[in-house]
Amino acid sequence: MKAKQIRLATRPNGMPTYETFKWTEETVADPAQGEVVLKSLYASVDPYMRGRMNDRKSYVEPYEVGEVIAGGVIAEVVMTNSTQFEVGDIVIGNLGWATHQIAHEDSLRKIDPSKGPLTNHLGILGMPGITAYFGLLDIGKPAAGETVVVSGAAGAVGTVVGQIAKIVGAKVVGIAGTEEKISYLKHELQFDEVVNYKSENFQEELKAACADGVDVYYDNVGGTVSDAVLRLINKYARIPVCGQIALYNLEKPDLGVRVQPNLLVNSALMKGFIVSDYGAHFEEAITDLAKWLKEGKLQSKETVLEGFEKLPEAFLGLFKGDNIGKYLVKIAEPSE
Amino acid sequence: MKAKQIRLATRPNGMPTYETFKWTEETVADPAQGEVVLKSLYASVDPYMRGRMNDRKSYVEPYEVGEVIAGGVIAEVVMTNSTQFEVGDIVIGNLGWATHQIAHEDSLRKIDPSKGPLTNHLGILGMPGITAYFGLLDIGKPAAGETVVVSGAAGAVGTVVGQIAKIVGAKVVGIAGTEEKISYLKHELQFDEVVNYKSENFQEELKAACADGVDVYYDNVGGTVSDAVLRLINKYARIPVCGQIALYNLEKPDLGVRVQPNLLVNSALMKGFIVSDYGAHFEEAITDLAKWLKEGKLQSKETVLEGFEKLPEAFLGLFKGDNIGKYLVKIAEPSE
Repeated sequence: MKAKQIRLATRPNGMPTYETFKWTEETVADPAQGEVVLKSLYASVDPYMRGRMNDRKSYVEPYEVGEVIAGGVIAEVVMTNSTQFEVGDIVIGNLGWATHQIAHEDSLRKIDPSKGPLTNHLGILGMPGITAYFGLLDIGKPAAGETVVVSGAAGAVGTVVGQIAKIVGAKVVGIAGTEEKISYLKHELQFDEVVNYKSENFQEELKAACADGVDVYYDNVGGTVSDAVLRLINKYARIPVCGQIALYNLEKPDLGVRVQPNLLVNSALMKGFIVSDYGAHFEEAITDLAKWLKEGKLQSKETVLEGFEKLPEAFLGLFKGDNIGKYLVKIAEPSE
Repeated sequence: MKAKQIRLATRPNGMPTYETFKWTEETVADPAQGEVVLKSLYASVDPYMRGRMNDRKSYVEPYEVGEVIAGGVIAEVVMTNSTQFEVGDIVIGNLGWATHQIAHEDSLRKIDPSKGPLTNHLGILGMPGITAYFGLLDIGKPAAGETVVVSGAAGAVGTVVGQIAKIVGAKVVGIAGTEEKISYLKHELQFDEVVNYKSENFQEELKAACADGVDVYYDNVGGTVSDAVLRLINKYARIPVCGQIALYNLEKPDLGVRVQPNLLVNSALMKGFIVSDYGAHFEEAITDLAKWLKEGKLQSKETVLEGFEKLPEAFLGLFKGDNIGKYLVKIAEPSE
């Protein structure tokens, strides 16, 4: 069986481009004992993958140059040499950007297509949803009536953060960069306030939106947007640091106002995390998220491009803010 | 009764000088109901007092221009119109830099001179000791075998932080700025390693001292010293931010490498605090500190200048690193 792959052609210096990727076509071998052959259905593009393109310590191992790009993929088992998986099973795993591929049974988890849209497992019930859940509830710990600010508010994580904050009774202030996103967050997700960081008066507008200051700042972006929020924090503020998308493509480390004096005078907490820190507790998050989804308290939002060849476009689009909610590429339909 | 006072003459712009202070002499009135007249015995100088000289939000209210400087003072009751205090009682409180003064009974706490040196109540059993205790144990949470780095290691807080870290079985790396301090920390307090931040090869020496990376960084200083430590943090590092003495006298906020990406890739925690955050738990800290002191596991170190008129010199000396351990001024002997 022939399959297409997308590989890391070269480590990007700054913003990745189409030249960051190269395409190959290879034959998929027969599965060895414990392996299956998969047909990819959906692949996720996520900002953290940019970090893996660098040859530097990050929280996930770097991709090797020439290696197939790997990320969250939902796939269908089309051949099996595993006692755990049958042909037709739908699985999820950290898999290659490839139309078909061999995978070991230990790297896969079966998902039940009867329990809702498959794509939820890459979004609201998957890594972004779980990231939102623990970052907000375990680090941010918002109380009813407190003000929660979330940057990257229209993204896969931000949309869930804001909705969970509403569920716990907090006031939610989102930060986003287009009028379409702002309208979606205000009118569909019922965020209390949404501020456009591209506005000339961003700092003043943010201050007006956070009339009682900021108790929790869920940081997906970093950089000067975060500087503006940090000026408004209250005593005992909590700042989960989930992403720094504003910085991922900088060619050298960025200087900014030191945060320590601000944390000091406000007895504030700032904590970085990655979803795998909570690996032992994923089921707890998924149970709550699925319940809220079923009750209509959470909405899932996805932006889906069609076609395997769209993967680089989707990935590059993350850094231009192209997506609302989870950004996915549909590669193939499941078999009947 | 005539008394001398030291007041804030003018808000310093940058480093304070002798001109920051002005001297007055005033008569002390008779105490009203619930008040006492105090004779000051010892006054504490502390870096946080620099923040109170600014007209900006900090964690403690600013001093007013013309106001008597206030800080930790141990005093003797010489007249009383309070049912709670007798003449001869030794008390501690946040009191004025004055040879004598009136104080309300609610602002004072009696101390028992039979339980050890009075000055301990401004140092190891007082605010600096309690600050060290909670910052290290509640935020830093060092485990046996972990590496704890403390900056400002020879100061009132730093000397206690390092000793408590030794008690819990951590490896302790101090950062200080003179050979005298380094020798004291290594040979008297048995710190495992002490590095001089004024060394040309500071970063390399620090790295060599922290062969297993940094699990806890107790930050008393901020600025580029902290940048150097933060480059070495391990996954799940904890960073109590206790002081930022390197920054207190800057005329404008300092730029530095943003810490968020570092906290993110290491799932690290940074938290500011002030000792009063733990107000409900002071007795717990004092009990442990007194026990360790009695058992010889903790040593108290103080630098004491003699004479009320030395207060500005001592205060200014904090920013030049003049002191080892708690810096105090002795104002008068207790009465027989």
